[in-house]
Amino acid sequence: MKMSGGVEWALHCCVVLTAARQPVPAARLAELHDVSGSYLAKQLQNLARAGIIHAVQGHAGGYALTRDPAEITVLDVVEAVDGPRPAFQCTEIRQRGPLATPPEQCIRPCAIHRAMTAADEAWRASLRAVTIAGLAQTVTDDNGPQVFAGMREWLLPLREAEPGEGDVGQPA
Amino acid sequence: MKMSGGVEWALHCCVVLTAARQPVPAARLAELHDVSGSYLAKQLQNLARAGIIHAVQGHAGGYALTRDPAEITVLDVVEAVDGPRPAFQCTEIRQRGPLATPPEQCIRPCAIHRAMTAADEAWRASLRAVTIAGLAQTVTDDNGPQVFAGMREWLLPLREAEPGEGDVGQPA
Repeated sequence: MKMSGGVEWALHCCVVLTAARQPVPAARLAELHDVSGSYLAKQLQNLARAGIIHAVQGHAGGYALTRDPAEITVLDVVEAVDGPRPAFQCTEIRQRGPLATPPEQCIRPCAIHRAMTAADEAWRASLRAVTIAGLAQTVTDDNGPQVFAGMREWLLPLREAEPGEGDVGQPA
Repeated sequence: MKMSGGVEWALHCCVVLTAARQPVPAARLAELHDVSGSYLAKQLQNLARAGIIHAVQGHAGGYALTRDPAEITVLDVVEAVDGPRPAFQCTEIRQRGPLATPPEQCIRPCAIHRAMTAADEAWRASLRAVTIAGLAQTVTDDNGPQVFAGMREWLLPLREAEPGEGDVGQPA
């Protein structure tokens, strides 16, 4: 079982966006992360589609969070990139073979399905308990406030130096 | 993120084996589940490799659980089929780009990695809390004791009628 690698990039982008005072172009986010712009664009499009970030048009255009990072959970981002489906998909094996349980007796999910659902819910509850603001706070706690101060500074100059740059890396 | 479909088959086989009084040939497990023998053999090999079931040779040969089903957890089976690696694999994105955190400052996993690890542990704890015996009990609670009685009966006759049948579907 493997989570899409895009989840990690999407989460890093969200945390970076908490530091930005203005929308950040997709190309700038890619440069900051030293990753291909087209790969990152896909993750940003997933985030935009899920309403976590939005593209601001124009000279000072780019991506910004749509709401307070304290109101965006890690689960929101995981589901934006990897989809909302549980990892376990029940195929109703109990309804197969010579001793099959008749479908009309299969109203309730089977014991295995229920165990998997409980585990999935525990996983989701844990991811729902951490927000983007919480991640940013942990980064500050770990590395000091200069990390986000430096990031904010790095994100700004280009915006001022190149006011005409307006590629927000929008979905095609 | 998707769990291997083999997990579901492996769990069903383990629950069925709690009902058997004798080792059950792989072909018989496949027949009971109405599934390809070669596909099921792969899952049984995974279970055997993990020490959850073992192949008994000879006339009354087949697969049997290696220990009390109360001592086999759902997590044991999930890891036997899907491996023990967490779904999230950190690629140390913080060490990339112009604002990279120096490796020597990355002793502790980053905030995102820690959030993912906590969720993974919550998921594993939930799967570890349910045993094969517990699943079998839930099936009995849901459908009555006749389910396992019927399974036990179905699994027996062939063993007595065909004492020479010894294909245990062992790993190649």
